Amino acid sequence: MSEAPCVLGVDFGTDSVRTVVVDVRDGRILGTAVEYYSRWAKGLYCDPLTNQFRQHPLDYLESMQVSIRGALREAGGSSAAQVRGIAVDTTGSTPVLANGQGTPLALCPGFEENPNAMFVLWKDHTSVKEAECINHLARTWGGEDFTKYEGGIYSSEWFWAKVLHVIQEDPAVAKAAATVVEHCDWIPAVLTGLKDLQRLKRGRCAAGHKAMWHPDFGGYPADAFLAKLDPRLVPLKASFGTETWTSDVPFGRLSAEWADRLGLSTDVVVAVGAFDAHMGAVGGGIGPYQLLKIMGTSTCDIVVGPRMAKPEILVKGICGQVDGSVIPGMIGYEAGQSAFGDVYAWFRKLLAWPLETLLPAVAAEKGLAVNGLAEAVMERIISELERRATELPAEETALIALDWINGRRTPDANQRLKGAIAGISLGTDAPRIFRCLVEATAFGSRAIVERFRSEGIRIDSAIAIGGVARKNQFVMQTVADVLGMEVAVAPGDQAVALGAAMFAATAAGLHPTVEAAQKAMSPGTEKIYRPDPARTKHYDAIYQEYLRLGAFMERT
Amino acid sequence: MSEAPCVLGVDFGTDSVRTVVVDVRDGRILGTAVEYYSRWAKGLYCDPLTNQFRQHPLDYLESMQVSIRGALREAGGSSAAQVRGIAVDTTGSTPVLANGQGTPLALCPGFEENPNAMFVLWKDHTSVKEAECINHLARTWGGEDFTKYEGGIYSSEWFWAKVLHVIQEDPAVAKAAATVVEHCDWIPAVLTGLKDLQRLKRGRCAAGHKAMWHPDFGGYPADAFLAKLDPRLVPLKASFGTETWTSDVPFGRLSAEWADRLGLSTDVVVAVGAFDAHMGAVGGGIGPYQLLKIMGTSTCDIVVGPRMAKPEILVKGICGQVDGSVIPGMIGYEAGQSAFGDVYAWFRKLLAWPLETLLPAVAAEKGLAVNGLAEAVMERIISELERRATELPAEETALIALDWINGRRTPDANQRLKGAIAGISLGTDAPRIFRCLVEATAFGSRAIVERFRSEGIRIDSAIAIGGVARKNQFVMQTVADVLGMEVAVAPGDQAVALGAAMFAATAAGLHPTVEAAQKAMSPGTEKIYRPDPARTKHYDAIYQEYLRLGAFMERT
Repeated sequence: MSEAPCVLGVDFGTDSVRTVVVDVRDGRILGTAVEYYSRWAKGLYCDPLTNQFRQHPLDYLESMQVSIRGALREAGGSSAAQVRGIAVDTTGSTPVLANGQGTPLALCPGFEENPNAMFVLWKDHTSVKEAECINHLARTWGGEDFTKYEGGIYSSEWFWAKVLHVIQEDPAVAKAAATVVEHCDWIPAVLTGLKDLQRLKRGRCAAGHKAMWHPDFGGYPADAFLAKLDPRLVPLKASFGTETWTSDVPFGRLSAEWADRLGLSTDVVVAVGAFDAHMGAVGGGIGPYQLLKIMGTSTCDIVVGPRMAKPEILVKGICGQVDGSVIPGMIGYEAGQSAFGDVYAWFRKLLAWPLETLLPAVAAEKGLAVNGLAEAVMERIISELERRATELPAEETALIALDWINGRRTPDANQRLKGAIAGISLGTDAPRIFRCLVEATAFGSRAIVERFRSEGIRIDSAIAIGGVARKNQFVMQTVADVLGMEVAVAPGDQAVALGAAMFAATAAGLHPTVEAAQKAMSPGTEKIYRPDPARTKHYDAIYQEYLRLGAFMERT
Repeated sequence: MSEAPCVLGVDFGTDSVRTVVVDVRDGRILGTAVEYYSRWAKGLYCDPLTNQFRQHPLDYLESMQVSIRGALREAGGSSAAQVRGIAVDTTGSTPVLANGQGTPLALCPGFEENPNAMFVLWKDHTSVKEAECINHLARTWGGEDFTKYEGGIYSSEWFWAKVLHVIQEDPAVAKAAATVVEHCDWIPAVLTGLKDLQRLKRGRCAAGHKAMWHPDFGGYPADAFLAKLDPRLVPLKASFGTETWTSDVPFGRLSAEWADRLGLSTDVVVAVGAFDAHMGAVGGGIGPYQLLKIMGTSTCDIVVGPRMAKPEILVKGICGQVDGSVIPGMIGYEAGQSAFGDVYAWFRKLLAWPLETLLPAVAAEKGLAVNGLAEAVMERIISELERRATELPAEETALIALDWINGRRTPDANQRLKGAIAGISLGTDAPRIFRCLVEATAFGSRAIVERFRSEGIRIDSAIAIGGVARKNQFVMQTVADVLGMEVAVAPGDQAVALGAAMFAATAAGLHPTVEAAQKAMSPGTEKIYRPDPARTKHYDAIYQEYLRLGAFMERT
């Protein structure tokens, strides 16, 4: 057993990096460790008021080293000696401006504390105006619409909008920058010690979904297009080359420096990087015609389907379709809901208002010691709402909510949209509102599925991973009922890191394909939520009301 | 001082009866007493599930005697000897089926415990179907539309719908009934010992606003119309006569029996009765072109204006316009909002859900003694929301709410309508929702004012009485800002009973007119809320959004 080959899956999330040590034969997780970003945890380089969210490259490097060593220590024995491959996934689009060796400018003298020289985190919204410029130009410049493989609407969360914002805001950074690197591409470069931009294998996933790369364009958008946005984008683009790679491909081998830091061999293969959702879809067991939902505060929804004959169907209003962004050889589609668990968290916070605002003062006035009482009640709110909502009769309510409390990502991105609750009567209580909010998030999921289908992309069933998928049974049953499809939940909290491990195993040649790695290493299904046909029919009618309310709110 | 002539104002509310002893020279309140209805307090004869709300006539008689004696006792000295007049107001429409002497059937052998033989309280909604029949017939029968002076929509809360429901549901009651009496007409009959239906002076206010009485019709609706609803309505109507009286007119003098019971003289004049809102408007100081809002859980809105040349302007979608229903010689208009304070109470109840549902159990688990803590926090919620909402910047929110959580009374009654909250984002907290609910109730007030104006009825300013008017400063300032009018608040909690006292003084000949009684006996103004022009302009725009959202919700 201890002689089994292992791989590392390294998953960079928003707050922390998680490493899993995985047995490539059966996917068993031998060790795991999570390390938080220390500067980020202090709120450095961020300004929530302007939605500026930047991360320092040292946060990544320091936490990665601790996390990998911790996971290996937990795996114990000779596991480090058995490691054959490493794959990395990150959030995205999370680009950084870098020098001629691909080194982020924040690691170069003079830029150490400059947020514009750091990674621009996926949720940074400082480039709303730049995204509008890109969308406007794409529709009016007379040439190819380079947004067409990205759902037709370019987002402020994406690569070019962020690059444009930084270079226009910070001339010093613009002047010093020789290239731009996505977080998921930079980590493999670090681990392999690569300093040559020409040989930096940029991931297909990030480039295709966020940077408008496509073979039909011969790579990234045309110079003429970029020059109209800002001439300084043209040489940056030139530094990227025209190729991209899928994550079953080796990026290189571990450098002596990092082999030493991590206690691993320089034979270890480092795979091309990709985004967390896409590798997570693989870890969750996605296959053709399946929707994989990563369900947390928001959702990322991934669909894979076979390559199509030209002209390829273009799915409008999603976050892109990219050959090989999930499983090599298939088209990966990305969509998502801007708020999912956040909708319930919002309601919890609302109900907690008297607990947070009034209870401590009132208790003090009454001379009561209530340490931790408010917090303990708050922790219980969602589970109690779930319990009571489950007991409500199905047909009773006339409440309809819209889930757009953080705008709408898919279908048809529109950050200006807002949520709503309609149909309130004197008898409308907290469990009923909770239920209608759950229904609203499920309707949001259905709107995405319907968009795929109406554009001609089959979806037969769903798989769910993430915190909500494993914790909130009422939510999950409602999603199954509203979608009218089985929703399988993958076990464990580490599907994303496990997906990275599957890529590591494939890139290291331990499995011939990603599908073979999935077959061998998948942990199977923890639970299946099956739709109740009567409830599905009931929800068919309410979904139409959801659409009507949504259409009205979108018009006003 | 002790030789000053006094009058009694007796105000029958939903739960209790209040008596005030008032000095007719200056309106000073010398004594007051409130007595609750004992059977009603136990929930007898009611079924909230079917919205059946009935009150036993003995509740009224017993509580009235205690209340009047209590008020006289508090006034002390020789006040009982100084009493010259009594006027009574009640809720309405609150009719009862009665025998040939005008005695409610519940006081007759065999009907003592039969809810159909008792008063059908204003908020009883058992006759929704009957109201629909009346509305349908009024529009289709080919003759006069008898709803035209009642806003064009007949409500299930009104006289004929209730009578129709009771006689169709209960043949024994229908057979025994010789007449129907409104609560406000029965009490004067009791006090004066009147047993002769021919001499029973029915109040103009109740008959005109709720029973489709109008001089143009020659009294109540035509026999042919009533016969189509139910032939048994025709002889009941015949018992009413064709005249009605305003409340400046004496109904009669106190009977020996009641003079003895109350310790008063048989010289005491008893005035014709009317509804609480209409007498309350007089007590609150209403004059021509003024809107008087009685603001509690719901609102009743009264406007008075001069008589008009024919053809009289008919204000569509209100609760009627009746010559003399408020101030004799002027047209009284009635409107109202189905939920006002109830909207805030609903939100308070929502926020209190964790306190009521979870806190006691969690505290017990933690071994904490928290007696009364949840209740104390709940009591603080509205005032804290008001305080924080006041501090919010005016222009920041994009939240819009609809106040129809208990349906809509005016303009254009529609009980099926529901409330809504739109424009929710992740940052939408409890004070912001509270503010938008307050704005929604203020917009509901504005919709009523706009209806009057668009129909050609001038409204120059507003007066507010009732619990919300005196307690909720943020609400009242918002109403002033939204209406763009000054809103004066009358002092004291007894404006309605004081209004009855003004009628008593007029009927007893102590003041020549109701206006003269108002002038002498009005307590003036406690506070004036003046609109902030900038906020009024801001709300002009948001009001348009309120109307759009309302129009959408009404269509779906």
